[in-house]
Amino acid sequence: MGQDRTVTKRHPIGVFDSGVGGLTVVRALRSAIPGEDIIYLGDTARVPYGSKSPRTVERYALACQQFLLDRGVKLVLIACNTASANALPALIAASPVPVIGAVEPGASSALAATRNGHLGVIGTLGTIRSGAYATAIHSRNPEAQLSALACPLLVPLAEEGWTDDDIARLVAKRYLVQLFAQDREIDTLVLGCTHYPLLKDVLAQVGSEIAGHPVAVVDSASAMAEAAREALGSGANRRSTAGRLDCFATDTSRLDELAPRFLGEPLTGFELVDL
Amino acid sequence: MGQDRTVTKRHPIGVFDSGVGGLTVVRALRSAIPGEDIIYLGDTARVPYGSKSPRTVERYALACQQFLLDRGVKLVLIACNTASANALPALIAASPVPVIGAVEPGASSALAATRNGHLGVIGTLGTIRSGAYATAIHSRNPEAQLSALACPLLVPLAEEGWTDDDIARLVAKRYLVQLFAQDREIDTLVLGCTHYPLLKDVLAQVGSEIAGHPVAVVDSASAMAEAAREALGSGANRRSTAGRLDCFATDTSRLDELAPRFLGEPLTGFELVDL
Repeated sequence: MGQDRTVTKRHPIGVFDSGVGGLTVVRALRSAIPGEDIIYLGDTARVPYGSKSPRTVERYALACQQFLLDRGVKLVLIACNTASANALPALIAASPVPVIGAVEPGASSALAATRNGHLGVIGTLGTIRSGAYATAIHSRNPEAQLSALACPLLVPLAEEGWTDDDIARLVAKRYLVQLFAQDREIDTLVLGCTHYPLLKDVLAQVGSEIAGHPVAVVDSASAMAEAAREALGSGANRRSTAGRLDCFATDTSRLDELAPRFLGEPLTGFELVDL
Repeated sequence: MGQDRTVTKRHPIGVFDSGVGGLTVVRALRSAIPGEDIIYLGDTARVPYGSKSPRTVERYALACQQFLLDRGVKLVLIACNTASANALPALIAASPVPVIGAVEPGASSALAATRNGHLGVIGTLGTIRSGAYATAIHSRNPEAQLSALACPLLVPLAEEGWTDDDIARLVAKRYLVQLFAQDREIDTLVLGCTHYPLLKDVLAQVGSEIAGHPVAVVDSASAMAEAAREALGSGANRRSTAGRLDCFATDTSRLDELAPRFLGEPLTGFELVDL
C-alpha cells in the first residue's frame, strides 16, 4: 500500500481537521470499523480554515498530514471539507498512503440519495467558494442540478450546543430559504462541513418545511467512514477489541468541553503539539 | 518618545487586529484625530484569536506588532480585545513606542458611565477567560461589581450583517439573560470585542428590556481613539488634510466584502503580507 515503507493492517488510521468537528468522522469510523486504531489531529490553533484562502489552507493541511504520516498511519482521512476542497491534490501528491477527502464520499452519497437529481450543498465559505462539490458531483453526473450556500453561523451554533431550539430553527430557515430560492426542487441536502451533523435534525425538518416535500440530508462523516472501509479492504484490522484513539491538538482551548459533543463519547485526553 | 530611534509627529499610528473587527477602531481614530496617517494590519490568516490559548495569542500578537514597528509607527493600538487581554505586557516590553490596549480604555469609560457600579462585559471566549476586564476595572475601583460572559455567535452575526433583525434579538436575548442572571442591577455593558459595535443598538435595547432599567453600552473603539489622542499629546499630527490609511492583511478572504461594514467607508485596497 505504501510506496516507500511497509504498512500493515496493525497501523492506525490518521484523521485530521482544523478543529473538533472532524471528531464526527472519528465517531462514524469507530462505528463502521471499530477494531481500527485512530490518530486524530485537530489544528485548533489555526481553526477555522473556512475563512482562509486556498493557499493558506493548503499549507496548513500539508503540515497536518505530515504529522500523521510521521506517526505511521496506513490511511489519511481529511475530516475537514475546507481542506478537502482546497488541498486534496497536494495532499495526495505528498502521501505514500491513500488519502480520502470529505468531498468525494459526500458527493457519491448525495447522488445515491437523490430521486430527481436536484441537490443542495451547505458549508463554510472556503468549501462553497472552492466549487469542489460541484466538480465532484458533475464529474459523476453532468445532469445533476446543484445549488450551494455558505452558512457561517452554523459552526458556532453547533459549538454552543444550540442545535434544537428557536435560534437554530430561525438560522436554518434564513439560510435554507436562500438555498431553496435557487432551486425549489432540491430533494437532497449535503452537509459539507463536519460540524453540521449536530444540526442534521433541524436542517432536515426546516428544509422539508420550506421545500414542501421531504428533503434527505446526507452527512459526509458517515460517507467517509464507508469510503475508509472500502479503501482498506483486506488491510482492515478485524480484531474484535475496540481500537485505540489518540488525539492531538495544536491548541488546548475548549477542547475538553467541545470534543465529547462531536465524538459522542468522553475524550480520555489529548496531547498538545506544535506543527 | 522612542527609546532607540527618533519618532516624529509625521510618523503613522499602527493598529492591528486578528481580523477586520479592528477597523471599528480605525473608524473611531479617523473621526477623533483625522490628520493622522494609519497603518492597519489584520491577521486574517489566523483569525479568530478568541478561541486560541494565551500562549498562541501572544506569539501571533508579537509578530503583528513587529510588522508595524518595522514600518516606523509612533504608537501601537491593539484593536483586538483577545490580544490585549492576553499579550499586553509582552507587547509593551517589546515596543520602543507607546502601546495602547483595548481593555484599559474600555474599563475607564465603563467606570465613568456607571451610576451604581454594576458592570457587565461581553466578549470572545479568550477575552472573558483572561479576566483582563476584571483586573482593569478592580484596579481602578475595587468596589465595582463585574459580571462577564463569552458570546461566540456575535462575531459571525456582525460579519453576516444580521445586526437588526429577529435572529440578532434572540441571540442577544439568549446571552444577556445569562448575563443579567448573574447581576440584575447591571447598568453599564462593555462591548469587549471590536466586532460588537455593529450590534450596539440591539444589545442596548435588549439589555434594557431584560434589566427593566436603561443600560448604557460602552464600546472600546471610541475609548481607544480617545486614549490615542491623549497619549500623542503634542506628538499628534494637526494638519488639516485627512491622513492616509494603508491596510495590510495576512489573507485575502472576504476582506473586500467585510471591511466597509466595519470601517464605515470604502476600502481603497490592501496589501497581502506573510508574517
